[in-house]
Amino acid sequence: MELVLATRNPHKTREFRQLLGSTFEIEDLSANPDIVMPEETGSTFQENAICKAVCVSGLKQGFVVADDSGLEVDGLSGAPGIYSARYAGTNASDKANVEKLLRELRNVPDRSARFRCVIAIALSGKALATVEGVAEGTIVLQPRGNNGFGYDPVFQPTGSAKTFAEMEAGSKN
Amino acid sequence: MELVLATRNPHKTREFRQLLGSTFEIEDLSANPDIVMPEETGSTFQENAICKAVCVSGLKQGFVVADDSGLEVDGLSGAPGIYSARYAGTNASDKANVEKLLRELRNVPDRSARFRCVIAIALSGKALATVEGVAEGTIVLQPRGNNGFGYDPVFQPTGSAKTFAEMEAGSKN
Repeated sequence: MELVLATRNPHKTREFRQLLGSTFEIEDLSANPDIVMPEETGSTFQENAICKAVCVSGLKQGFVVADDSGLEVDGLSGAPGIYSARYAGTNASDKANVEKLLRELRNVPDRSARFRCVIAIALSGKALATVEGVAEGTIVLQPRGNNGFGYDPVFQPTGSAKTFAEMEAGSKN
Repeated sequence: MELVLATRNPHKTREFRQLLGSTFEIEDLSANPDIVMPEETGSTFQENAICKAVCVSGLKQGFVVADDSGLEVDGLSGAPGIYSARYAGTNASDKANVEKLLRELRNVPDRSARFRCVIAIALSGKALATVEGVAEGTIVLQPRGNNGFGYDPVFQPTGSAKTFAEMEAGSKN
């Protein structure tokens, strides 16, 4: 079966192919430069994921999958949250976002955090289902590891001695 | 790797084995009659799932998985929700719960509903992660199909002509 992934982020396409590539044929929007992704105007990860999946599924045949994810840091009242990708500004690099996070946490004792990811599935402009995953963890003092992307080098899940960026793709997934 | 499933419901053990049996060795609590499952006193599926996983993981080695799930019907303001398994009373049968649901909906025009399932993972008394799945759908007028359990015979997911109980296990999962 074919799944259309409503993203222009090649990292996300790669992660989805690793996870679901044996069950689904996964296509992203790279062959459709004409499709404009909607602005992420929702107030939750779930609203953003549903909005992207529903919008793109009105333009593409078949099942469309979209995700929205980010980091919620307890000592920063849940920031960066839905603004994770643009924490240091529009089109900020992963490096700039991570640096801002470590700066904001410099004098904050509580570094507990969770990584939240919502995936929405739509067909013909209708939301069918959502899946939400939450991993509990902590923000380490310095980036470690070269795998993954985003905040992976500073997020260490509970029960692990490695950051997401120090793990093989299989362990992180 | 071994996963302990914090449940005494053989239907749930079977579903988890179908889903994850190729990756994990799945054990439930049938060999541990001494472990008393905590009361489901949370106000959300998530609280109940975390409570069960954390509590049992304080008594069993290794990763412990627990779930809580139910049906939210829009025309009934989200009922039966976290009370899905005991909608018609403590230890009510699936049949009694389904009959009560159809009775309550008799004069309700809006039969849209969602099936929500939260899975929590814990290790040594600490919550590590949760996964939440939501399937949108509608409550049909009469039960159809013999597979699955719970409200499966009356829940028809959006985009499908079959109820959960008319689907093969693979499609439902």
